[in-house]
Amino acid sequence: MNSAPLKVVAFGGGHGLSASLRALRSCSDKIEVDITAVVTVGDDGGSSGRLRAERGGLPPGDLRKALVALAATDEASARTAELFEYRYAAGGGDGVVGLAGHAAGNLMLVGLMEMLGDPVAALDHAATLVRACGRVLPMSRQPVGIEADVVGQDPADPAAATTVRGQHEVAVAGGRVTALRLAPSTPAACAEAVAAVRDADWLIFGPGSWYTSVIPHLLVPELAAAVVASPARRVVTLNLATDAETAGLSLAGHLAALGRHLPDLRVDAVLADTQAVDDPEPVRRAAESLGARLALAPVAVADGDPRHDPAALGAALVPLLGSDR
Amino acid sequence: MNSAPLKVVAFGGGHGLSASLRALRSCSDKIEVDITAVVTVGDDGGSSGRLRAERGGLPPGDLRKALVALAATDEASARTAELFEYRYAAGGGDGVVGLAGHAAGNLMLVGLMEMLGDPVAALDHAATLVRACGRVLPMSRQPVGIEADVVGQDPADPAAATTVRGQHEVAVAGGRVTALRLAPSTPAACAEAVAAVRDADWLIFGPGSWYTSVIPHLLVPELAAAVVASPARRVVTLNLATDAETAGLSLAGHLAALGRHLPDLRVDAVLADTQAVDDPEPVRRAAESLGARLALAPVAVADGDPRHDPAALGAALVPLLGSDR
Repeated sequence: MNSAPLKVVAFGGGHGLSASLRALRSCSDKIEVDITAVVTVGDDGGSSGRLRAERGGLPPGDLRKALVALAATDEASARTAELFEYRYAAGGGDGVVGLAGHAAGNLMLVGLMEMLGDPVAALDHAATLVRACGRVLPMSRQPVGIEADVVGQDPADPAAATTVRGQHEVAVAGGRVTALRLAPSTPAACAEAVAAVRDADWLIFGPGSWYTSVIPHLLVPELAAAVVASPARRVVTLNLATDAETAGLSLAGHLAALGRHLPDLRVDAVLADTQAVDDPEPVRRAAESLGARLALAPVAVADGDPRHDPAALGAALVPLLGSDR
Repeated sequence: MNSAPLKVVAFGGGHGLSASLRALRSCSDKIEVDITAVVTVGDDGGSSGRLRAERGGLPPGDLRKALVALAATDEASARTAELFEYRYAAGGGDGVVGLAGHAAGNLMLVGLMEMLGDPVAALDHAATLVRACGRVLPMSRQPVGIEADVVGQDPADPAAATTVRGQHEVAVAGGRVTALRLAPSTPAACAEAVAAVRDADWLIFGPGSWYTSVIPHLLVPELAAAVVASPARRVVTLNLATDAETAGLSLAGHLAALGRHLPDLRVDAVLADTQAVDDPEPVRRAAESLGARLALAPVAVADGDPRHDPAALGAALVPLLGSDR
């Protein structure tokens, strides 16, 4: 173990970022890490979307998931994390929607953000409630919209491009994303996230919804500049399967999409699941075009679901993070 | 100081119980107390009333206020207590009521109660969130209705009695309460509250809304029986002023109302504010009819508001609680 912990910044959105954070935690018996999660703020679906539409603050859901992924495991902290994740069921009342469908932690985060007037102070306090082993930051203090140009949605005219607006709509659009934008197009970065990137030893991108959770960070100008300028090394963790927004996109195509949205991005290592890579050559070449070597390891859960196993992902990250430059 | 802390059970509802709990805390440099709050569960107004109507569980507001009164004063606990009390403002959205008007702590308590399936477990966890210096229990695990027969509401027929239903309606009814009932009429007591009463050194009744926050405890059969049978000594803290539900009721009348609703109730001491008692004789006689001596002390805030000053009330309680039998 080094004397100083490795400072690791993990970028992402919902479940993929949670997997990355849980993997980093699971490294802690091998390598001491100081974890900062930087979270997209484009969510407009579900409980987060309702709260954002109703109240106008940051969508809390992905922030909440990251906090829960970092929650301490003592009984009280685990119970508080369980409360964060608790979804109010439909009430027995007279048809009023009210709390139904909201996660309690979303309402707590909204309350803290409104009460304290600052999302970072709110997240830092929420982190104390679950005794989080790391910090959770938004990529921007302002919520953003996500827009994509998508080709191939119309079977009658497969070359036609349409503009799809909203994170949820982009995530379920199908077709091939040819361009991605934020609205506003150049949101201010969260200063604490920029500072964490500057100070980091490692930056970790993915896994996660590629266009709606991973790439949006690269579209925030100050954050992208900090990523490019940071002395940190960078690892990209590839997904195990495609989803609606990446249908037809190969793993090599995922890497090319990163480079297309941030041409100056240099990467040190690309981590992919052994089973998810049929032919490593194109992935290796795409990694090399970003300056990275390809590392293959079994990082999926054993039941065949396309989910990362935190312990396996952590075990695969340890030799990368612990390696000398 | 005794070697074992004095076990004190404080009964009440909203603001009055908070004053009593804050007073007990302020005793802690003079006398070690182990505090249990037992809280009415009849609230049907405001945020609590909406949640109760929509979701059917215990009204959380008075439970929340008691937890906040017992919250630790370190920065993190104080901030969490502040979150408990945070009221969501109206959202900027399209007219949906949503969270507006709810206290964040009410939503957290509802979430914990639903998630854990038990209000006592929920309150115990909420107590850990604010590092409460005591335990908060409901008088019953089931919400109750409060009904009163009220005389004098109709100026044209001042002797006519009407039945008023609902804690909020009773609290604002005006007129003279001639009978008070719970619905259901004999709710099961919270077993942990009964056990706390059995083990207590002192029971404290009031201050608070007399008919809707103090007397309801005496109408829960098992709790009333435990109060009568407990070896604990009892103090009644009288109010500083009347409110709508006790308009025209003298302080002696407050004491008589206790005896009328629980004829076997014996009291050791009645504590009243010096300034609030114009003529001590009738109050002294009413106290004596319950077996109690009257203690007068300056316990109100200095600005003339009819509110108890926690430090002054605590200072007045210390010689009572510390006295030998």
